Amino acid sequence: MDSFKVGIVGCGTVGGGVVKLLLENGELIRERIGRPVEIAFVADPQRERALALGVPKEKVFPDGIEALKADCDAVVELIGGTGIAKRVVEEALKKGRHVVTANKALLADYGEELFRLAKENGVSLKFEASVGGGIPVIKALREGLAGNRIEAIYGIINGTANFILTQMSQRGISFEEALKEAQELGYAEADPTLDVDGYDAAHKIAILATLAYCRFVKTEQVFVRGIREITPLDIEIAREEFGYGVKLLAITKLVNGEIEVRVHPTMIPENHILASVNGVFNACFVEGDFVGETLFYGKGAGREPTASAVVSDIVDLALGNTYAVPECLFKGENLRVREPEEFTSSFYLRFTALDRPGVLAKIASILGKHNISIKMALQKSIEFDGGVPVVMTTHPAPKKAISLAIKEIDALDVIVKPTFVCMIEELEERA
Amino acid sequence: MDSFKVGIVGCGTVGGGVVKLLLENGELIRERIGRPVEIAFVADPQRERALALGVPKEKVFPDGIEALKADCDAVVELIGGTGIAKRVVEEALKKGRHVVTANKALLADYGEELFRLAKENGVSLKFEASVGGGIPVIKALREGLAGNRIEAIYGIINGTANFILTQMSQRGISFEEALKEAQELGYAEADPTLDVDGYDAAHKIAILATLAYCRFVKTEQVFVRGIREITPLDIEIAREEFGYGVKLLAITKLVNGEIEVRVHPTMIPENHILASVNGVFNACFVEGDFVGETLFYGKGAGREPTASAVVSDIVDLALGNTYAVPECLFKGENLRVREPEEFTSSFYLRFTALDRPGVLAKIASILGKHNISIKMALQKSIEFDGGVPVVMTTHPAPKKAISLAIKEIDALDVIVKPTFVCMIEELEERA
Repeated sequence: MDSFKVGIVGCGTVGGGVVKLLLENGELIRERIGRPVEIAFVADPQRERALALGVPKEKVFPDGIEALKADCDAVVELIGGTGIAKRVVEEALKKGRHVVTANKALLADYGEELFRLAKENGVSLKFEASVGGGIPVIKALREGLAGNRIEAIYGIINGTANFILTQMSQRGISFEEALKEAQELGYAEADPTLDVDGYDAAHKIAILATLAYCRFVKTEQVFVRGIREITPLDIEIAREEFGYGVKLLAITKLVNGEIEVRVHPTMIPENHILASVNGVFNACFVEGDFVGETLFYGKGAGREPTASAVVSDIVDLALGNTYAVPECLFKGENLRVREPEEFTSSFYLRFTALDRPGVLAKIASILGKHNISIKMALQKSIEFDGGVPVVMTTHPAPKKAISLAIKEIDALDVIVKPTFVCMIEELEERA
Repeated sequence: MDSFKVGIVGCGTVGGGVVKLLLENGELIRERIGRPVEIAFVADPQRERALALGVPKEKVFPDGIEALKADCDAVVELIGGTGIAKRVVEEALKKGRHVVTANKALLADYGEELFRLAKENGVSLKFEASVGGGIPVIKALREGLAGNRIEAIYGIINGTANFILTQMSQRGISFEEALKEAQELGYAEADPTLDVDGYDAAHKIAILATLAYCRFVKTEQVFVRGIREITPLDIEIAREEFGYGVKLLAITKLVNGEIEVRVHPTMIPENHILASVNGVFNACFVEGDFVGETLFYGKGAGREPTASAVVSDIVDLALGNTYAVPECLFKGENLRVREPEEFTSSFYLRFTALDRPGVLAKIASILGKHNISIKMALQKSIEFDGGVPVVMTTHPAPKKAISLAIKEIDALDVIVKPTFVCMIEELEERA
């Protein structure tokens, strides 16, 4: 059978990984699919990056747009960002080439128009590597669970944040210390905002929600809270007193025919399998109406795992599996995305109060006034942040009521610091 | 687009689940793939089973072979066993219909000829539901990780055995008690041999090894040991003294250009994610050269999860994704399957000895003579099985040497019961 020709635009960390994989495992892939995958060209302004990997120099171009003039079946966009990357993807689709990308920002911001463009040109736009690195979770959701109504997805899909929380949890160190370590190890950027403030996870859960619920979800529709405010004390109390682990979860779920899409620190039962996902590993826990609970776990970033995902898309295309996104995305009947104030959840609340009689009663009375039912309460006889920690967990309550109550409580003269609030998901595996 | 017509042969637990899924979620599937999946017919000697689910009576046939005369695009074989099921699959393939099956015994025994038949007739034989129930692990291996050399697969792929071991571990009960509970809950058959003696897992790992290593692996090539000999004492010692959990693992891995395929109780570090897979849940931990470590987790059996997997195959076919098995399977250059006596592993050994001076020295000296290096040793001052337990773990050693040493040790007059031997896999997630 004819070879399947791919042009790779961008030969940095991931692009270089894809070139390496295709060169090292090319024979294995040919044996598996009965057809060779051939590198048609590699484009990168730093041509030496491709040359160093052994790509013949006649196949190495400095300019991604120029390179598209060469013959190929699919273009792999691994430039990143939404500038030149967007132009390359558009040009390639218009030329009738399939496109593979790992670019979550591009998809989150321009997914709708790019998928339309692919559809108009009768080609496929594939994006396995955009969420969960090497974990084939897009494929699982789109194909492996295709018969299921997706009830919920709970994802640990930012390895940096998970590494930091794991270090804080296992060693009792502060957020700042753990972030510094992550930076020293190359797991976090000098400016860690995208990772620790939840925006990277928001891009990714927008993509998963789009697939699961057949409606384009944009990043700005995702409720986002990062992990900066979490203290080792909260992690310790959650575990020792309530049996919870703390994770930055990206969540999307069906609630009364509408959907929620959110990223925030979340307490989950520590015996739940998601709580065992540590370090830079990622995982998506997916609940379907027929399949029940499933989990997909692996490395969420890095040169080799991401290359593995990109190549799975290339192999799919080489086999003629050119279906990319659910047809219904173009139908325009959208499930509504709920506003944060409509969420209902159990909550963990840590108040920082002066050590005086009657404090607990004051807090409890305000919560009661807002119809918030307390599940457990404890007061620690330690000094923390200029007061004593008073911790409560609640039964499910409207987020709106919690916000109003916290505002009132934080205005009390016995409260010395803003209250730390964390949502709880009472995940339970049903055997 | 035209509807995709499926004929379902066998309307028992799984067949009924597939009918139910297609009826309940048919509209959802149509929206996702832009094409309706239509039930062409349902065949079952007990016609009322299909009728009760709402299949119109003109589509319900008593005879699976007769039913194949009706027009359809794919036949779904859910009879089970290797008798009539085999005939139905063969007839359907010969008629040029794609086939979907959940029948692991059929594939393990007749996979080679059936896949050849499918290839000759230009159709696909799909089998997602044959391993891991609802978990899309076949798809992951075949497509999602298609770019990777598969270094190893460690599977918990028998829910009954995992339920029993989980109960023994969490509650300290005996194998017999846990089996009885599993039977009462419907998780184990009256004759539990297939599950607890490892044969069901052997069928499944033969299928996974076939896909991973491009050579037909038959069940009789799998080394199999079941879980009947495990005691709560071993589980407790493994956890408390050595930090291991005990699982029935189905393993296949590349070792020096050859492969091992085996099913046996295995001790693994209890902080490894596989050790968190409890109850009737299944999981496959897959190591690829590029992707690194991945895990696929979910319900390995049951009406709804299995139906989810069957329908994912149907959806693939409806989308034209008709690739089924690696091309190289038909090439005939096989990786050799290693014999059990060639395995090298760390071992857990529990001797049952008389409480006399010099026992430890005698055991240690025989192990030393066979070049087996002891990692840890402990003697419990409790009575068990008419002696005292003397437990050792070893550094990696040839299984052959262990067998010879144990034979010699068990012949000592101070040893009162056959020694309990369990392999250890020092699994470690590399972050």
